[in-house]
Amino acid sequence: MYNPAEYIKDHIRTVPNWPQEGVMFRDITPLLQNPKTFRVLIDLFVHRYMDANLDLIAGMDARGFIIGSVVAYELNLGFVPIRKKGKLPFTTMSEEYTLEYGCATVEMHTDACKEGDRVVLIDDLIATGGTMLAGKKLLERNGAIIVEGAAIVDLNDLGGSNVLKNSGLPLFTVCQFSGH
Amino acid sequence: MYNPAEYIKDHIRTVPNWPQEGVMFRDITPLLQNPKTFRVLIDLFVHRYMDANLDLIAGMDARGFIIGSVVAYELNLGFVPIRKKGKLPFTTMSEEYTLEYGCATVEMHTDACKEGDRVVLIDDLIATGGTMLAGKKLLERNGAIIVEGAAIVDLNDLGGSNVLKNSGLPLFTVCQFSGH
Repeated sequence: MYNPAEYIKDHIRTVPNWPQEGVMFRDITPLLQNPKTFRVLIDLFVHRYMDANLDLIAGMDARGFIIGSVVAYELNLGFVPIRKKGKLPFTTMSEEYTLEYGCATVEMHTDACKEGDRVVLIDDLIATGGTMLAGKKLLERNGAIIVEGAAIVDLNDLGGSNVLKNSGLPLFTVCQFSGH
Repeated sequence: MYNPAEYIKDHIRTVPNWPQEGVMFRDITPLLQNPKTFRVLIDLFVHRYMDANLDLIAGMDARGFIIGSVVAYELNLGFVPIRKKGKLPFTTMSEEYTLEYGCATVEMHTDACKEGDRVVLIDDLIATGGTMLAGKKLLERNGAIIVEGAAIVDLNDLGGSNVLKNSGLPLFTVCQFSGH
């Protein structure tokens, strides 16, 4: 039986040893380049959220922008970019999160969402879950309701999807890969 | 008479003295957050290119992703991200360009486009034109035909739109702002 999620998974390219030795990088760019895989991919998110009564889609810098903005447009919603530090010009709020070595910061405009807004937060991939958790905190500080976190790929062995679910965030991922 | 380009221009926020003293930064995020301005904005590009017989939309990292990906989806085209250095995992080709101080590099996957592909290259804003010119060179090295460069804003006093036109790139911008 045809399964669009399997079709998507089959078109993800694995790049060995990038960005470092031993890592199998799951490259989603072939999904974007091909008009059919791109449409099937986006429509999985559109169908999922078309009756979810959302107010906004938030997308994580930068691959989350590519998916999130299309879903927002298709559902007649606004789009909120959550960006790496120093990229947003207006008044911002920020959240730090830890990486394997050191830490990073994401920012959101203070007027990006308001109390009670129903938001889906989109990124391309869940690894340790740190970026998405920071994005969730930013939106919640403004009183938004995060209906779900969503991504194309869950690298389930890295534990991020469990971290996110344990934080109270429902999660949707199109497909899963084992290993790093 | 109603003019969608004026409607878009009226919803761009000017942030004074960002990222440095004396710069009037044209902030497009309010256009994205509001479902109506977002849709009107995207539709200006969709209508312009729906009969242009395109193969691909290329978008510049990262605000160009937000516009370009939606236009690609709406026109049933593939989307090619042109990224800052070190972000693309597969084999890449790169172009350097000069900034006010120093230089920067953009990269594209070597298999992102092929000989004869008709491409529109999208970014949010034209300032000095350096990034878009570098993107054009990357696409042309693979034999693609750049039908047009497109952006929301032309900061015409900075001269970038003239540089791009003089390089042989037709250019479409929704609106223009004087000053820096």
